[in-house]
Amino acid sequence: MNDAIIKQHVYEANMQLPKNNLVKLTWGNVSVIDRDKGIICIKPSGVPYSKMRPEDMVITDLDGKPFDNQLKPSSDLATHVYLYQHMDNVQSIVHTHSLHAVAYAQAGRDIPAYGTTHADTFYGPVPCTRSLTEAEVATDYELNTGKVIVETFEQRQINPAAIPAVIVNQHGPFIFGKSLKKAVEHTIILEEVAEMAMKSELLKQDMNEIDRFLLDKHYFRKHGATAYYGQ
Amino acid sequence: MNDAIIKQHVYEANMQLPKNNLVKLTWGNVSVIDRDKGIICIKPSGVPYSKMRPEDMVITDLDGKPFDNQLKPSSDLATHVYLYQHMDNVQSIVHTHSLHAVAYAQAGRDIPAYGTTHADTFYGPVPCTRSLTEAEVATDYELNTGKVIVETFEQRQINPAAIPAVIVNQHGPFIFGKSLKKAVEHTIILEEVAEMAMKSELLKQDMNEIDRFLLDKHYFRKHGATAYYGQ
Amino acid sequence: MNDAIIKQHVYEANMQLPKNNLVKLTWGNVSVIDRDKGIICIKPSGVPYSKMRPEDMVITDLDGKPFDNQLKPSSDLATHVYLYQHMDNVQSIVHTHSLHAVAYAQAGRDIPAYGTTHADTFYGPVPCTRSLTEAEVATDYELNTGKVIVETFEQRQINPAAIPAVIVNQHGPFIFGKSLKKAVEHTIILEEVAEMAMKSELLKQDMNEIDRFLLDKHYFRKHGATAYYGQ
Amino acid sequence: MNDAIIKQHVYEANMQLPKNNLVKLTWGNVSVIDRDKGIICIKPSGVPYSKMRPEDMVITDLDGKPFDNQLKPSSDLATHVYLYQHMDNVQSIVHTHSLHAVAYAQAGRDIPAYGTTHADTFYGPVPCTRSLTEAEVATDYELNTGKVIVETFEQRQINPAAIPAVIVNQHGPFIFGKSLKKAVEHTIILEEVAEMAMKSELLKQDMNEIDRFLLDKHYFRKHGATAYYGQ
Repeated sequence: MNDAIIKQHVYEANMQLPKNNLVKLTWGNVSVIDRDKGIICIKPSGVPYSKMRPEDMVITDLDGKPFDNQLKPSSDLATHVYLYQHMDNVQSIVHTHSLHAVAYAQAGRDIPAYGTTHADTFYGPVPCTRSLTEAEVATDYELNTGKVIVETFEQRQINPAAIPAVIVNQHGPFIFGKSLKKAVEHTIILEEVAEMAMKSELLKQDMNEIDRFLLDKHYFRKHGATAYYGQ
Repeated sequence: MNDAIIKQHVYEANMQLPKNNLVKLTWGNVSVIDRDKGIICIKPSGVPYSKMRPEDMVITDLDGKPFDNQLKPSSDLATHVYLYQHMDNVQSIVHTHSLHAVAYAQAGRDIPAYGTTHADTFYGPVPCTRSLTEAEVATDYELNTGKVIVETFEQRQINPAAIPAVIVNQHGPFIFGKSLKKAVEHTIILEEVAEMAMKSELLKQDMNEIDRFLLDKHYFRKHGATAYYGQ
Repeated sequence: MNDAIIKQHVYEANMQLPKNNLVKLTWGNVSVIDRDKGIICIKPSGVPYSKMRPEDMVITDLDGKPFDNQLKPSSDLATHVYLYQHMDNVQSIVHTHSLHAVAYAQAGRDIPAYGTTHADTFYGPVPCTRSLTEAEVATDYELNTGKVIVETFEQRQINPAAIPAVIVNQHGPFIFGKSLKKAVEHTIILEEVAEMAMKSELLKQDMNEIDRFLLDKHYFRKHGATAYYGQ
Repeated sequence: MNDAIIKQHVYEANMQLPKNNLVKLTWGNVSVIDRDKGIICIKPSGVPYSKMRPEDMVITDLDGKPFDNQLKPSSDLATHVYLYQHMDNVQSIVHTHSLHAVAYAQAGRDIPAYGTTHADTFYGPVPCTRSLTEAEVATDYELNTGKVIVETFEQRQINPAAIPAVIVNQHGPFIFGKSLKKAVEHTIILEEVAEMAMKSELLKQDMNEIDRFLLDKHYFRKHGATAYYGQ
């Protein structure tokens, strides 16, 4: 796959964010990695979706160094690079400021797994990171955002292949996938289950998480060797 | 009515779900039964609405066995089949993950009948089933989902012709109709009255259900021998 | 103005309801009265907006008796007729099941006047009627709906020209105007201020009503002899 | 830039308000000042967006006196004029009745800075003014609205360049920018962060404001000499 095709695919994935009402203005970004070719492709920084073109996407090496004669990459690139370096089974990353996922981030809360809609995609609560320290924000902020995400998955002993999203405290969600298509799908679903969770809490105090065996059933109905959903 | 026509009608009914913002991606499904011809027609499993075609709909016999050379039917087919077998006056079934109906499912609550909008279509609260047990989830999950729905209507002594929807605990709604058109209409209305009910509770603690005589008036204004609404 | 033109205007006003997301399916209705010509024109009963045509509108005399060879009028016609007979300055009436106005109806609450958006159109809280009694519902329900609305305005000593809307308890809003255009505008605004009021209450317990002098300022900036808003 | 071009730009900026669902009917207004040419250009009073044309925009001198043969300017013009006279770094002003910003206004509350979405644009909470007194409302209401806004920024020692919006108590937001484009962008963002803030509060009682160092990081990543966001 040559560069023009990768840029086209990354462009189309990015355009899904405003189309699905997950970002405003220039917010958010989608990237993909091709580990064999040794490249990452990501949205440029601060370009409005309405004016963005496929050729504006930025290609970098695996350390996030852009090749020559391109626009500046998303300011969140360093987060994406660190995540690709430490999450082998992630091939695409999305960052948004979608409304209900951000509300959970601002509240500093995990998105609880309350029902089968959540369980079909996320094998447990979507974790919220700790807040970054002043030192972590002052220097290498975007890199440290990647580090606190990896720390969260490691400390909780969860796998981004099984729970392909995280909420960065006071900030917003990062979403993962084994492909651009899957990462964008998970992004749409994350926002939907965040809204469902918030509204469930309005209907009942002291909500319970979904029964563990029902979580298992729905997750494994769609994922892994025993899956039987889809064609 | 030949198979191509049935598939076209089921396709059009399914396409109403994303159009009315009741599902995302591949979620949800609509089916119809023709008891005389001995067939059921349902949406295929895991096909995105944007790519679905009329000919992708799947026709099965009354036990849910697909005829040859078709896509795989919805993974919820066994639920539909069981419901058709035990609910004589239901000719069409819809399953969605619509936002406010799911919020009630996740909260494990009936959708209360708070006003005339509800009473025009649902002759009382829309019931929420008990949760399935671990054994019911482990084996024949989709069949047992059908069983717990029928159990709910039987134990509460209510009729799916009078209250054509149910909320499966921790999961989401199934909606009924005597035709594809009616089932889809009831699906749109269910989500609307669920949102109205949630917002009414935000405005007033300890909400009262609608007066019984007003429920009767509105329901029977539109249904049964004394109906006088419509042409 | 001949009948075809009146029907066209009433049709266009009715079509504003789904366009502005104030009704679903066949819900809601708009009517107009021409007291000089002795006619009322109203939406037919139970016709979906997507299939409705201008010629489907129904013309009646001032007692609500339809002229020959027309569709059946809205089942709420008797409410409209009673209101026209008892509210001299009302020339057009709208009934919807818009989401937030219905939530207030189901909660049995007035829509409080919390800010200038409300005051620009409604000179005080939008009143909620008492519930109808069993006897009032059993016989002449639609007529009695009109009566409880008039009773509400009389008992509270308010004028539908100044507060051109009312919430019928457990049911939904009726909205008034001196023209089709104004009645529809008031309908759009009612739903918006209802949502604003609900969300204000989520942000602050024990909300205060708008200062009386600010209510006066905004209302009279747009209405009456001293108005200076608009061209 | 001649008058026709300024009017075209102001027209286009105003049309962004209904397009982004920030106003209904005739609500809201956008203006721009050209201090060198000595003119202000603003939306006319009470003209529906659907019928508004570029040539309907109204040009005034720096005291808000319209040149001849034009429509009547927005009734809020006096507020705009006073703000331009007392805020040197503001070149464009927007007023809306957007839903969540109005809810904060009606609750008489600042919009708290809960996360990075807010911090990217607003360097701290968006202030809510005190209520106007009866005397301030009775005489020169629109002028006094401008005065209470300037008073708010002065008393809190904040700068409209750093926090380019304010909530007028019981009324709604005014938003600022160094250009039409920026003022409209800030308007879109204000409504989004207001909704995010409200929903965060639904998820957690006693919300904390964003860490000061994170507010600094995000604000200065996008603004000032050390900014590195965008091209």
